[in-house]
Amino acid sequence: MATTVTAPSPSAPSTPLLKDELDIVIPTIRNLDFLEMWRPFFQPYHLIIVQDGDPSKTINVPEGFDYELYNRNDINRILGPKASCISFKDSACRCFGYMVSKKKYVFTIDDDCFVAKDPSGKDINALEQHIKNLLSPSTPLFFNTLYDPYREGADFVRGYPFSLREGAKTAVSHGLWLNIPDYDAPTQMVKPRERNTRYVDAVMTVPKGTLFPMCGMNLGFDRELIGPAMYFGLMGDGQPIGRYDDMWAGWCMKVICDHLGLGVKTGLPYIWHSKASNPFVNLKKEYKGIFWQEDIIPFFQNVTIPKECDTVQKCYLALSEQVREKLGKIDPYFIKLADAMVTWIEAWDELNPSTAAVENGKAN
Amino acid sequence: MATTVTAPSPSAPSTPLLKDELDIVIPTIRNLDFLEMWRPFFQPYHLIIVQDGDPSKTINVPEGFDYELYNRNDINRILGPKASCISFKDSACRCFGYMVSKKKYVFTIDDDCFVAKDPSGKDINALEQHIKNLLSPSTPLFFNTLYDPYREGADFVRGYPFSLREGAKTAVSHGLWLNIPDYDAPTQMVKPRERNTRYVDAVMTVPKGTLFPMCGMNLGFDRELIGPAMYFGLMGDGQPIGRYDDMWAGWCMKVICDHLGLGVKTGLPYIWHSKASNPFVNLKKEYKGIFWQEDIIPFFQNVTIPKECDTVQKCYLALSEQVREKLGKIDPYFIKLADAMVTWIEAWDELNPSTAAVENGKAN
Repeated sequence: MATTVTAPSPSAPSTPLLKDELDIVIPTIRNLDFLEMWRPFFQPYHLIIVQDGDPSKTINVPEGFDYELYNRNDINRILGPKASCISFKDSACRCFGYMVSKKKYVFTIDDDCFVAKDPSGKDINALEQHIKNLLSPSTPLFFNTLYDPYREGADFVRGYPFSLREGAKTAVSHGLWLNIPDYDAPTQMVKPRERNTRYVDAVMTVPKGTLFPMCGMNLGFDRELIGPAMYFGLMGDGQPIGRYDDMWAGWCMKVICDHLGLGVKTGLPYIWHSKASNPFVNLKKEYKGIFWQEDIIPFFQNVTIPKECDTVQKCYLALSEQVREKLGKIDPYFIKLADAMVTWIEAWDELNPSTAAVENGKAN
Repeated sequence: MATTVTAPSPSAPSTPLLKDELDIVIPTIRNLDFLEMWRPFFQPYHLIIVQDGDPSKTINVPEGFDYELYNRNDINRILGPKASCISFKDSACRCFGYMVSKKKYVFTIDDDCFVAKDPSGKDINALEQHIKNLLSPSTPLFFNTLYDPYREGADFVRGYPFSLREGAKTAVSHGLWLNIPDYDAPTQMVKPRERNTRYVDAVMTVPKGTLFPMCGMNLGFDRELIGPAMYFGLMGDGQPIGRYDDMWAGWCMKVICDHLGLGVKTGLPYIWHSKASNPFVNLKKEYKGIFWQEDIIPFFQNVTIPKECDTVQKCYLALSEQVREKLGKIDPYFIKLADAMVTWIEAWDELNPSTAAVENGKAN
């Protein structure tokens, strides 16, 4: 599909960054009217839309966007029996989009996320900020108190070892949310009126060895560096758990980045999260996760990936074995999940034969 | 000395927080005119002034402040032969003030630091923010993407384990600087005109296992929790190195906090750092540190404090042994420093016999 030329907004760069090297992945069950607001920023890019519900429903995409759309029938057709690793009726299915993308970078966003404004009232080009985050190094080995040292007007402070100032390649850029914060069901219930109004003008690296809760709402990553670790697990229809898809991906991704010496950033950009999801529905999805998480976190804090694992795929398969062995004791769900992790890698390599080879070459 | 009552500024709380539980420690070689600007915030508190140069010079303190002042003669008289552990002609001598304080909390500030303004133009009460940081818990075990979860309007995000939401006691609050950033001499030379103009509205915990460059310019801590680790080393007159006093304290303090399960925060409050020190003088002081640091950081990243060390003092002595053994190989300076670390603890316990007992009791 051809893109239509529109007048660039003042905050959009005249030539969009990485125009032909980035896909925008959107999971949805509804018409994508939210794209109207993003038109100045997203229209130059290719969209991959993954329909997470009933495949017979038609999703309307506003005119002028260049997109491909996959529903459950497409996923089943493309992956065959391996489609079992892709969640159904859950936004976790978005990771199918990561797999079919042919680009180096992916940005993924939820369809209830709108353009936020910075404190000066200017529209925030979230995608542009993610790209900046991904194209500049990270500092996972030592904390810089003035935040991102590569940003204009900032640098490494006194006492920062010079040997570490080259930084590490950035694999992931995790953006934040104004208005509705990303709270779990219990917190939503306790603080129904809490809104995030604080604009924190910072990007920082999540240090090596530190885990964080990665939210999939507003997320960019380098598919070549870390794509195969971005599996969003088994959630939704037929699964005992939901709303842990992005968390799961974040924990797996982070221990693999730590192992491979890659960086993960969080902070800017903000998007405007328009609507809190129903806390009662959320509690039902989350409650097993709330318990399991107490074991999952220590598991990830203590996991070690064998030294010889020099590609994301090898790391991920090693991780799946440990999930089976150690978390499988908590609940049979984790055995199923470990199997799905293996299937995911098989499917990834099938759809990305050259990437797999490139990644192998790179890691040597 | 009695304090004089002055009209509180609009941003100062009517009853100053921790008025009788906090000392302000200031190292200086000049008249303390900078205190005029801080009067609305500092006047209710007791000051401990440590004169770091020629003891025959008289330091003027603006009227109305309640203070005690120590010069080199006082330090020699009070500590006797143990005075050798306190630096001379260097602001590192400030740690003598930590030792003679009888309060639970200490705030230390340099005499070239003025009151900064927040983005709304309001004067920032730096001390009040440090106290808030110290009185609320830290989150060293897991990263919260919306920063300080205990702050009004914020909380723990989805995916943050519930068992970790009680947090850890906060031992240290590290504040930042607008205007002149805390750069090393090489960076000062390369970027003579760089100014920090970015107000980042966040306080965050430095995660467990992560080191950071602690600057002594604008720093609060809980003396009872971590005081004996706040030794600023051997710098200045007769020493081969300078400008690593606060860094050294920060690295020692951080590994001990990690061992004892205490938290360290960085971020707000900002002060206005008025004047860059001379980069040529700084380079002379720093250059050995720039080399040594490349070994010091891996040393601290890998140091392990024996499990049985359950007080700050025991941890610190264990650390001094490893400094002697491992860093002593780099330069004889570190053997001298390790000796001074032991002397510091002996002097601390001599001046703080009850605190030593309390700390022992607390850690059990």
